[in-house]
Amino acid sequence: MVNEPHSASNGSASSRSDGSSSGSEGSKDSSRCSTPVLDAERHERLREKMRRRYDSGDKWFSLEFFPPRTANGAVNLISRFDRMGMGGPLFIDVTWHPAGDPGSDKETSSMIIANTAVNYCGLETVLHMTCCNQTKEEITGHLQKAKHLGLKNIMALRGDPIGEEWEEEVEGFNYAVDLVKHIRCEFDDYFDICVAGYPKGHPEAESYEADLRHLKEKVSAGADFIITQLFFRSETFLAFMKDCQAIGITCPIVPGIFPIQGYHSLRQLVKLSKLEVPQEIKEVIEPIKDNDAAIRNYGVELAVSMCRELLDSGMVSGLHFYTLNREVATTEILKRLGIWKEDPRRPLPWAVSAHPKRRVEDVRPIFWASRPKSYIHRTQEWDDFPNGRWGNSSSPAFGELKDYYLFYLKSKSPREELLKMWGEELMSEESVFEVFTCYISGEPNREGHKVTCLPWNDDPLAAETNLLKEQLEKVNRRGILTINSQPNINGKPSTDPIVGWGPSGGYVFQKAYLEFFTSSENVTALLKVLKTKKYELRVNYHIVNVRGENITNAPDLQPNAVTWGIFPGREIIQPTVVDPVSFMYWKDEAFALWIEQWAKLYEEESPSRMIIQYIHDNYYLVNLVDNEFPLENCLWQVMEDTFELLNCPTEQ
Amino acid sequence: MVNEPHSASNGSASSRSDGSSSGSEGSKDSSRCSTPVLDAERHERLREKMRRRYDSGDKWFSLEFFPPRTANGAVNLISRFDRMGMGGPLFIDVTWHPAGDPGSDKETSSMIIANTAVNYCGLETVLHMTCCNQTKEEITGHLQKAKHLGLKNIMALRGDPIGEEWEEEVEGFNYAVDLVKHIRCEFDDYFDICVAGYPKGHPEAESYEADLRHLKEKVSAGADFIITQLFFRSETFLAFMKDCQAIGITCPIVPGIFPIQGYHSLRQLVKLSKLEVPQEIKEVIEPIKDNDAAIRNYGVELAVSMCRELLDSGMVSGLHFYTLNREVATTEILKRLGIWKEDPRRPLPWAVSAHPKRRVEDVRPIFWASRPKSYIHRTQEWDDFPNGRWGNSSSPAFGELKDYYLFYLKSKSPREELLKMWGEELMSEESVFEVFTCYISGEPNREGHKVTCLPWNDDPLAAETNLLKEQLEKVNRRGILTINSQPNINGKPSTDPIVGWGPSGGYVFQKAYLEFFTSSENVTALLKVLKTKKYELRVNYHIVNVRGENITNAPDLQPNAVTWGIFPGREIIQPTVVDPVSFMYWKDEAFALWIEQWAKLYEEESPSRMIIQYIHDNYYLVNLVDNEFPLENCLWQVMEDTFELLNCPTEQ
Repeated sequence: MVNEPHSASNGSASSRSDGSSSGSEGSKDSSRCSTPVLDAERHERLREKMRRRYDSGDKWFSLEFFPPRTANGAVNLISRFDRMGMGGPLFIDVTWHPAGDPGSDKETSSMIIANTAVNYCGLETVLHMTCCNQTKEEITGHLQKAKHLGLKNIMALRGDPIGEEWEEEVEGFNYAVDLVKHIRCEFDDYFDICVAGYPKGHPEAESYEADLRHLKEKVSAGADFIITQLFFRSETFLAFMKDCQAIGITCPIVPGIFPIQGYHSLRQLVKLSKLEVPQEIKEVIEPIKDNDAAIRNYGVELAVSMCRELLDSGMVSGLHFYTLNREVATTEILKRLGIWKEDPRRPLPWAVSAHPKRRVEDVRPIFWASRPKSYIHRTQEWDDFPNGRWGNSSSPAFGELKDYYLFYLKSKSPREELLKMWGEELMSEESVFEVFTCYISGEPNREGHKVTCLPWNDDPLAAETNLLKEQLEKVNRRGILTINSQPNINGKPSTDPIVGWGPSGGYVFQKAYLEFFTSSENVTALLKVLKTKKYELRVNYHIVNVRGENITNAPDLQPNAVTWGIFPGREIIQPTVVDPVSFMYWKDEAFALWIEQWAKLYEEESPSRMIIQYIHDNYYLVNLVDNEFPLENCLWQVMEDTFELLNCPTEQ
Repeated sequence: MVNEPHSASNGSASSRSDGSSSGSEGSKDSSRCSTPVLDAERHERLREKMRRRYDSGDKWFSLEFFPPRTANGAVNLISRFDRMGMGGPLFIDVTWHPAGDPGSDKETSSMIIANTAVNYCGLETVLHMTCCNQTKEEITGHLQKAKHLGLKNIMALRGDPIGEEWEEEVEGFNYAVDLVKHIRCEFDDYFDICVAGYPKGHPEAESYEADLRHLKEKVSAGADFIITQLFFRSETFLAFMKDCQAIGITCPIVPGIFPIQGYHSLRQLVKLSKLEVPQEIKEVIEPIKDNDAAIRNYGVELAVSMCRELLDSGMVSGLHFYTLNREVATTEILKRLGIWKEDPRRPLPWAVSAHPKRRVEDVRPIFWASRPKSYIHRTQEWDDFPNGRWGNSSSPAFGELKDYYLFYLKSKSPREELLKMWGEELMSEESVFEVFTCYISGEPNREGHKVTCLPWNDDPLAAETNLLKEQLEKVNRRGILTINSQPNINGKPSTDPIVGWGPSGGYVFQKAYLEFFTSSENVTALLKVLKTKKYELRVNYHIVNVRGENITNAPDLQPNAVTWGIFPGREIIQPTVVDPVSFMYWKDEAFALWIEQWAKLYEEESPSRMIIQYIHDNYYLVNLVDNEFPLENCLWQVMEDTFELLNCPTEQ
């Protein structure tokens, strides 16, 4: 219902004294329109976002991670990016370990982890890079690769020299400043560059003052901001900051916060960084060194109070956290500081990628709603992304299914867990119906296990889907195996906690959508129902089997907008469409998941596997849109009518 | 209110057995999206539209006009195009008279009239062209010019040889078939080509049979369809058609209908065409030859009955009318035949241009709503037109105001009529307020004359504007001189007779809009009101004076969509936006109209002229959008609050 009033607020209203424009834009590009700026920051680079926060006084945080050792570790780290990304970090950064082949294409390399963070998790990402003991060509190669992957920010470091007797190479990369100069020389202003600052001076520097001068050289060479090495007292950082200012360093300096999370990790870090732990900390920790929980609690307390002092000083607006790839301590500190975003507003109904090329993207097919990373993966070769309108020509080739990728056809859960959820042994198609029904209802299956994911939904049900729970449960029980759906929405405020997105003051709308697998008998009955006068012009359908046999009433294969929003002072945004062309690509993936994720859990020739194989070979994938968004969703009635027809076959 | 149910019907739903696509479109173009096909015919060429009607059995008509002699005649003819275009002709055609410099840039030339019909009136247009006594270069030049102007259809004719003793030129253009061949040779399939057929044989042909053979040659050379010379009996045409089919002419043959509209025009035409008027017609006409009305009534009757016979024969689906540039008889015949479209559905809220380059256009700024021809004129140099989204980069240079054009800064009405409406002598600014108020109210002014147009509105009030009449009248009386407005609409059926547009089964929406000139004192008060909490985030405004001093709260100069529609199976359409950048171009035109159309009616230095000049120099042009389309339009309350503030200046 659109009728409920709510207060408008579009945020960044501004006065201008001259809105005139010379209009000299090349007319060639006149229909290449820019994305309406739903989020003013969407087109800003990191240093601009940082500057904006310094100017406004908004507090922020960033998170540092190191690359994982194993593929499973990578899957876990990516999930962590998603969860910690919810809190709204300004950026994350990924460290670089020369010994770990950091620039390679391995799924565990720094390069690929940073690529995943920026492209698939939509996080502004800083990639560390060290230069010591590397050739100019190697370094340029890494930078080019980073640029190609959409990375825009580099933390330029020297890295640890290999071996004891390190000597400066003439013309080589001896210090971080050489790397900064090289980046600016070869890539001009493309990258935002971060450098390290040492509040107590670099352990190898001749003196604190000499180190400050080195830092100033790095900034003069083109660094945009500084992140500091960890420290234990806020005074240390504040004094350092004043000293930096005194010698003319004016760029942002972000304090690096190390929450103490355990005795051994602290010791190791202290050893590496050659820092001394203050006596008062040592005195607390030593007696509890075997009690991890106690140390972590202490670490949280300590970090919170130090961060408070930093923020209260008025000199600090952002905090950088050395997470050690752990979630609990950092999240708790951020929550207690009040800078963890509890309810981040969604700029669009789906997560926006942070790749500079993709930032204009504002339309996607609905099919990949529960598999956004797969969508990004399959469209990563696109040069342009649909902006404003999907159109017919916006569906260039999707990446082939055969490409392997971490999160592509692989489930997050291990095989034994999946078997518990989806059945150690399937008896019939009805066993499969039960799995779907339990996923929707949240009830445990007959072996007493909850079904928390399906091959098409790696995560629990979306809050929005819960609105449809009762009806979904009912139809799944009858073999309408739903994998995607949304209710119709007729103008809810854009701030609605469940279906809202975009800036406040707007209204969001949806057409009801339902997507499911079902048997060919069901499809025959369904089609009879859909072709009755009642639904003929109201419901758009696409029905396809694994061989691509396709039945649709979509006019001219046009896309159907199923989610859109109206905002103050902006053009219409329509972020989701049902596109007949890309549905055929999605179909391949949706059918493949039956085999890759489910059938392959069972032995070849086993009855369970044959049941899944039968479904894969014989079922249809159906999507339905009810175009009458202002009326009650008719799709449930379509289902009722279909069941009725199936119950009274004589009436056929 | 969106809540009222109405039956959906999207028309062209169709089943396909394979909706799959290779998806091989170049990814370069992936964000260049096509227009959602609101009107399936929008992208078809004339012969395809004709074929579609032949296949479906839908009846259609076309209208022939000749170029006017004077500029005033051209203004009138263009108005006639607009009025007769409302009836839904499949195309119109413009004849070619070698003596009248038909290919020139004069506003009365065939070329420019056809250009106006296609570009400014949005009519599918066929340009006649004769070839006799012209060089290949001249003809190619004409064709190139026609192509450049967006003309896609040529009626290829021989034309009358000059002088008595005409001889065939070797290698020259002796017959229409030479022109057809030339067009196909030089322009391949670009043009649709029409040729003339003579139901009684061409008067100069050796025989009827020989003439049929010539006709077949023209078709074989590449003609797409045939329009016949006039005839007086349906049998004549039907026999001719059978004879054509017998010798293998399979293209559409359209009967040319000549409604007898007067004794002299009939005699003249008969003389030129060397046709004989049947005895039964002569017998009726001769006795009433001085009674124009009686002859016209007879002509209408005769044409209606002949057309009925043709349509009833099942061999004819379209009728071509020789209008002689007159409206009444042809319109009446078409209405009586039931093929005049009484209520043409608007594909978009504004008239779509028929230029092939412009056919994708589906967004325009609202400012030119009452001056669409001026908008087309000022954007005629654009290579691309905004499609789907306006964006910031879609506002390349607008044509300069200084370009002269028929309908550009010139009113349709003569000076003496304008003076009667707008005042022979103005006493004060209030006299101007009165003119605006009378235009809105429909009441005569104090000299007893109705004000049927204003410089910014060449036509009477739009039906939609009538919805706001009472409030508009009230504010104009107070010096809020409104020139454009629309009510807010929260989801009315797309078939709504007043605000509806697009295919049936959809819903249309609008944000309330108000645009007006007003004094700087009013603007000062208005701004105070707009900046109150009540309106600050709800109402977007742009306020500018003739010098371009601009006050706005539009975020980032983004366009604001103020009209949009949601349709079954389609992407969102947003045909009108308030665009801050093009508002600055519109402002120049809107202010210039004060001087060009109004001030210049009065002598220089006259008080009347000085009043208009004062307004031009000192008033502001204001536009307001109420973003809360689901609520009651708040713009009238903004006005009330402004008046209140002006009345109680102490509260300032």
